[in-house]
Amino acid sequence: MPDAQTGRPLACSIGDPAGVGPELICKAWTRREAEGLPPFFVVGGAGLLAQAASGRGLDVPIEVIDDAADAASVFGEALPVLGSGDIDYSPAEPSRGGAKLALDSLESATGLVMLGEASGLVTGPVSKGLLATVGFEHPGQTEFLAHACGIAADEAVMMLAGPNLRTVPITVHCALAEVAAMLSIRLIGRKAMIVAEALARDFGIERPRLAISGLNPHAGEDGKFGDEEARIIVPAIEALRAAGIEASGPHPADAMFTPRARAGYDVAICMYHDQALVPLKALDFDAGVNVTLGLPIVRTSADHGTAFDIAGKGIADAGATIAAIRMAGEMAARRAMHG
Amino acid sequence: MPDAQTGRPLACSIGDPAGVGPELICKAWTRREAEGLPPFFVVGGAGLLAQAASGRGLDVPIEVIDDAADAASVFGEALPVLGSGDIDYSPAEPSRGGAKLALDSLESATGLVMLGEASGLVTGPVSKGLLATVGFEHPGQTEFLAHACGIAADEAVMMLAGPNLRTVPITVHCALAEVAAMLSIRLIGRKAMIVAEALARDFGIERPRLAISGLNPHAGEDGKFGDEEARIIVPAIEALRAAGIEASGPHPADAMFTPRARAGYDVAICMYHDQALVPLKALDFDAGVNVTLGLPIVRTSADHGTAFDIAGKGIADAGATIAAIRMAGEMAARRAMHG
Repeated sequence: MPDAQTGRPLACSIGDPAGVGPELICKAWTRREAEGLPPFFVVGGAGLLAQAASGRGLDVPIEVIDDAADAASVFGEALPVLGSGDIDYSPAEPSRGGAKLALDSLESATGLVMLGEASGLVTGPVSKGLLATVGFEHPGQTEFLAHACGIAADEAVMMLAGPNLRTVPITVHCALAEVAAMLSIRLIGRKAMIVAEALARDFGIERPRLAISGLNPHAGEDGKFGDEEARIIVPAIEALRAAGIEASGPHPADAMFTPRARAGYDVAICMYHDQALVPLKALDFDAGVNVTLGLPIVRTSADHGTAFDIAGKGIADAGATIAAIRMAGEMAARRAMHG
Repeated sequence: MPDAQTGRPLACSIGDPAGVGPELICKAWTRREAEGLPPFFVVGGAGLLAQAASGRGLDVPIEVIDDAADAASVFGEALPVLGSGDIDYSPAEPSRGGAKLALDSLESATGLVMLGEASGLVTGPVSKGLLATVGFEHPGQTEFLAHACGIAADEAVMMLAGPNLRTVPITVHCALAEVAAMLSIRLIGRKAMIVAEALARDFGIERPRLAISGLNPHAGEDGKFGDEEARIIVPAIEALRAAGIEASGPHPADAMFTPRARAGYDVAICMYHDQALVPLKALDFDAGVNVTLGLPIVRTSADHGTAFDIAGKGIADAGATIAAIRMAGEMAARRAMHG
């Protein structure tokens, strides 16, 4: 659904041109009617998008637009592209030039959303290693967006959302051995609060039910294997309940993701990266969306990387890209409705 | 299928009488023909099994036998029970008397299998805490069995097996913060070797493909988040390959459990409890079997606990118990075939 009040389109950053991003955007555009996707435009890369489409055997007319406001009227007949940045298309051959284009596209698309020209941001997959070589100083796109929006990095919360499950990792990109020391009552409580507010505002879940995982096997089994549950997680849950949040746990992680358990909550708040991502990808492979909660803007992306190894082969699945576009549109529509 | 050469039955320990063990054995017996289960008998608990069956509305004639060799001929018409141990049935009310019965049943059943009277052991769920109050000195049944068989505790390897997935945790019941320090090239290599040998001998997979997980997010992403992959896991994989084992990895854990990834291996060797159990239970809830590899005897169990909270209510799912009995029968038949 397009932005309910203004018809503003979504802005898509193109991602690394050597990865699967461009071909998946083209594929998503061809599915716009069947999937009921809201209007979107891509920032930069008109030439390489045309090449990516033809390389995948897709009929995707490209139309360069000068103004985001023109995207909606173009969208039915052509994939709208804003901006003149471009590069020769070379799937599976990452380069600094491609990384520079990806960075320009990300920065411009973010700016357009912050200025209100677009209703939400869908980012394409990038190579963090390559971005670092062209001046990108953030660990990832999520941290870049927090910085761009002027909020602290740990106020931008990554949520993975699929048809069967939503999960949030409290700690993300750190060694497993460091996870326990990084956890705190404040960190868990603050991130869970952001999640609860975002599920209400952006997902229409009035009283979201948060299931909080334990850190240790069997959630520590009464302190037998680690004390983080008693020392940190239980107090965090009590603080959340005192703040009116419907929070349960700590749940043994291995019991949290059966169909029966999943029916009891709206989001699983997990203590570390793989605790959140393993069940999500096991259950919702090819349809997982990475959503950044806590930002003043709407931002989603497909929950996969550049997949350089299969780029240009026409086999990358567009399911997650389509789901990311749809979810951004729905979130933007809810924000527009509520002012 | 019964033991191919001797027709020996499987021995089932009854588990804690207050848990779901007795009712699930009864349920499994009623499904013996539909599920093609091999003959089995229960050690002890004739009276409480009768009560558990009637509490669940099941028609299960019980026949006490004096010799395991009589089980097969009885099995078609009644549930054979060996031994006179018994207790009043009280679902959901755990007691020391119940724990003592569970321990006696476990010890006798183990002895019968070690003596060759039974072809394999299927253990019922017990309360480890209660067992400790009646003189059980092991952290769990797996460690008890290793001790009973005269092998080192870390030579008995827990594998979880479901219709979609097999996983093995290298470390099991320890705090997450301790996992990294417990890993070693030797521990991973030794356990993986036991798994490879058992998949060939007991599961008929001639050249098993082992997928070894990383410990850290993205398997460390080239050392950015932890160095255990480079320092421990990669050398372990190289040692396994040198020994002729088909081992791949280290794989990022979150990418290992999609259907496409799972098609590429026979077993996932994981670094810690939840890395192995979260995907197994997410994908194969109600059908997961806990198998102990590396023992001189065959041993399986349903991959769930006593479930005191639902015992006696008739709602516990017998899928995992049935799968555990079937798997023990198949493993025993393969061992019998190969002498």
